[in-house]
Amino acid sequence: MGRLVMKFGGTSVADIERIRNVARHVEREVKAGHHVAVVVSAMAGTTNQLVDWCKQASAVHDLREYDAIVASGEQVTAGLLAIVLQDLGIPARSWHGWQIPLQSDGVHGSARITGIDAGEIRKRMEQGQVAVIAGFQGIGPDKRITTLGRGGSDTSGVAIAAALDAACDIYTDVDGVYTADPRIVTGAQKLDRITYEEMLEQASLGAKVLQPRSVELAMVYKVPLQVRSSFESPDSPNQNKADGTGPGTIVCDEDKMMEQHVVSGIAYSRDEAKISLRKVKDKPGVSAAIFGPLAEADISVDMIVQNVSSDGAFANLTFTLPRKDLRKAIDVLNGIKTTLDFQEMTHSADVAKVSVVGIGMRSHAGVAAKMFKSLADKGINIQAITTSEIKVSVLIDEAYTELAVRALHTAYGLDKA
Amino acid sequence: MGRLVMKFGGTSVADIERIRNVARHVEREVKAGHHVAVVVSAMAGTTNQLVDWCKQASAVHDLREYDAIVASGEQVTAGLLAIVLQDLGIPARSWHGWQIPLQSDGVHGSARITGIDAGEIRKRMEQGQVAVIAGFQGIGPDKRITTLGRGGSDTSGVAIAAALDAACDIYTDVDGVYTADPRIVTGAQKLDRITYEEMLEQASLGAKVLQPRSVELAMVYKVPLQVRSSFESPDSPNQNKADGTGPGTIVCDEDKMMEQHVVSGIAYSRDEAKISLRKVKDKPGVSAAIFGPLAEADISVDMIVQNVSSDGAFANLTFTLPRKDLRKAIDVLNGIKTTLDFQEMTHSADVAKVSVVGIGMRSHAGVAAKMFKSLADKGINIQAITTSEIKVSVLIDEAYTELAVRALHTAYGLDKA
Repeated sequence: MGRLVMKFGGTSVADIERIRNVARHVEREVKAGHHVAVVVSAMAGTTNQLVDWCKQASAVHDLREYDAIVASGEQVTAGLLAIVLQDLGIPARSWHGWQIPLQSDGVHGSARITGIDAGEIRKRMEQGQVAVIAGFQGIGPDKRITTLGRGGSDTSGVAIAAALDAACDIYTDVDGVYTADPRIVTGAQKLDRITYEEMLEQASLGAKVLQPRSVELAMVYKVPLQVRSSFESPDSPNQNKADGTGPGTIVCDEDKMMEQHVVSGIAYSRDEAKISLRKVKDKPGVSAAIFGPLAEADISVDMIVQNVSSDGAFANLTFTLPRKDLRKAIDVLNGIKTTLDFQEMTHSADVAKVSVVGIGMRSHAGVAAKMFKSLADKGINIQAITTSEIKVSVLIDEAYTELAVRALHTAYGLDKA
Repeated sequence: MGRLVMKFGGTSVADIERIRNVARHVEREVKAGHHVAVVVSAMAGTTNQLVDWCKQASAVHDLREYDAIVASGEQVTAGLLAIVLQDLGIPARSWHGWQIPLQSDGVHGSARITGIDAGEIRKRMEQGQVAVIAGFQGIGPDKRITTLGRGGSDTSGVAIAAALDAACDIYTDVDGVYTADPRIVTGAQKLDRITYEEMLEQASLGAKVLQPRSVELAMVYKVPLQVRSSFESPDSPNQNKADGTGPGTIVCDEDKMMEQHVVSGIAYSRDEAKISLRKVKDKPGVSAAIFGPLAEADISVDMIVQNVSSDGAFANLTFTLPRKDLRKAIDVLNGIKTTLDFQEMTHSADVAKVSVVGIGMRSHAGVAAKMFKSLADKGINIQAITTSEIKVSVLIDEAYTELAVRALHTAYGLDKA
């Protein structure tokens, strides 16, 4: 029984009753002999309220002040959980980011962790005190409070687990990682295990179970990670076992996978938009002229499709970007229209990205072909394609999202027996 | 135009609109050439919510966690005000207790300030940056967050003013200190000036304008203090003047008083209860035997009246205490009944303390006599009396509170012409 970091999100600590439930999960692991650190988010709704106040205060607000304000939410939860744990007779104390300290860079609002001095916490854990850590926050080089960006509590949890050489259980409102969104695919199955790489792709592709940065960090530091439910009874007999399995989904290295599946899941994202530029004068440097200004405006472009006209003088260019950035991107492109020299710009927010993810793809041919055929069979038009070693993504009309996810789930044999 | 600390309470920062109003008060003082630090409370209601969560978490909660939780309220207001000030084009940044640092002892829940390192703040103020300081909080010897107890933001304000050699304006929901509670006495008048000593008596006697600790601190460090309204328009022409006067009530040393009034105000408190012990066996050490255990139970006894029986064998003893402690005191006394040897204990919560305060009493005879006569004329029975150099307090039946306050206000010539 070693060190364990347990991370609970906002809905798991939404009120005192739920915090009491969290405490009973912690109690169980303490009684099982673990040295426990708990990382908590703000009570559900709190962060939104604080962010809303910041926006009311000023549309363009100082991110250093924003950080000092929103970090208070986690501070409250950490204190309350420490009190409830003490009430159960479990020694506990709260830790704010600056008290640990959890050092970060100075990029307020979305800081990156630069170092964690976990010595004091580790010592106290060994003496039996549970460390209750305010997630999402750190301290910057100028001794001001930083936050790690939305979902940063997952990242805090994994980073602290890495610093403590601990395993990390991420408690959330679902009981694991599924082959597809169970709200769309009734036959979706919970995975016992998934590789870091697959989880990273799934997270990046829109599955909202874990933050991509936290998975990345777990992969780099080889933190044994589990996604499990905080709403299951703390007394359930189905608990972590000595062999490293547990009630949720274990995220681990490829060599720890029991059996290799070719495709582990179907992901989708509706947070997409596309922009098409028709008859762009095709000359050297044109791509840089388009994507440079977008990058400067902090817009991440994802899929890019370019067709050159038969005479080679013009290109038609289509690319996707986060839906929230569509307006900004249009403004940027209109601003450089004269230098760019394109005939027409069209855009659409009615698109979705559907992806097939699986580490087995690396050694199996035909995965993409099966995807294209399955979608064609349902009459779904593919507007763009991107691939990596372990995923294939297509852009389709948003209205077909559910149909596509279900068809692919069946095509790859993922449906529950 | 020197350094100025402006302190705003919870109702003055209850929402973003009110915070904007506060910012305009700050803007006015900045434009007048002051180097400004602002001390803020939590938004009205926030602290109560946080305290309530602590109580829900556990009836007997760790005060170190309590402090970490409730201190978050001021943190939020400080950040929001800094954002709003920046929005007005005024350089500003927020400071938490630990960032200054404002050092305190380790008595969590009601810590006392032990030192303030104001060097960095002073430097920035001289460069034109407004320091927005989270009130009510400090950092203890163990590097954990402490709070100064209810109303501690007044104390923060005065202590920071002392550390900065600044004047301190306390903005509140009334426009100054009155000769009596204007809700009871329609003819009550706002005082232009009051001495520290009188203010301290008034605060201690139940007038809720300022915290006694903050007045004490102002008196010791000779901080020029003003009580004024945050709800008056920031653009009102009635502002602080170079001669040290202002729109509110100035609290100052006796030698700065323009004219000496014999009585400056009538205070009252309904937070009183009394306990009477009949036929206590009168022997050496009996007072210690009664008041020792009460003190140990953290109960402050105020007025004490003792009558010895004609044969000297027994005493009847009456004393007052805070109403909230009545139940506890009865339990304590019942617990020591056998060793104490008294015949009967009676108690009442239907009592009030009415006080006449005035620094002129020291050189004027007959103030107390006039009080007793005025009350007698109205048929009000006096149950106990205490006096100091500058006040006379009497305990009366609570039902007569308003009548007594009005009668005394008239008797001492305090009514508005």
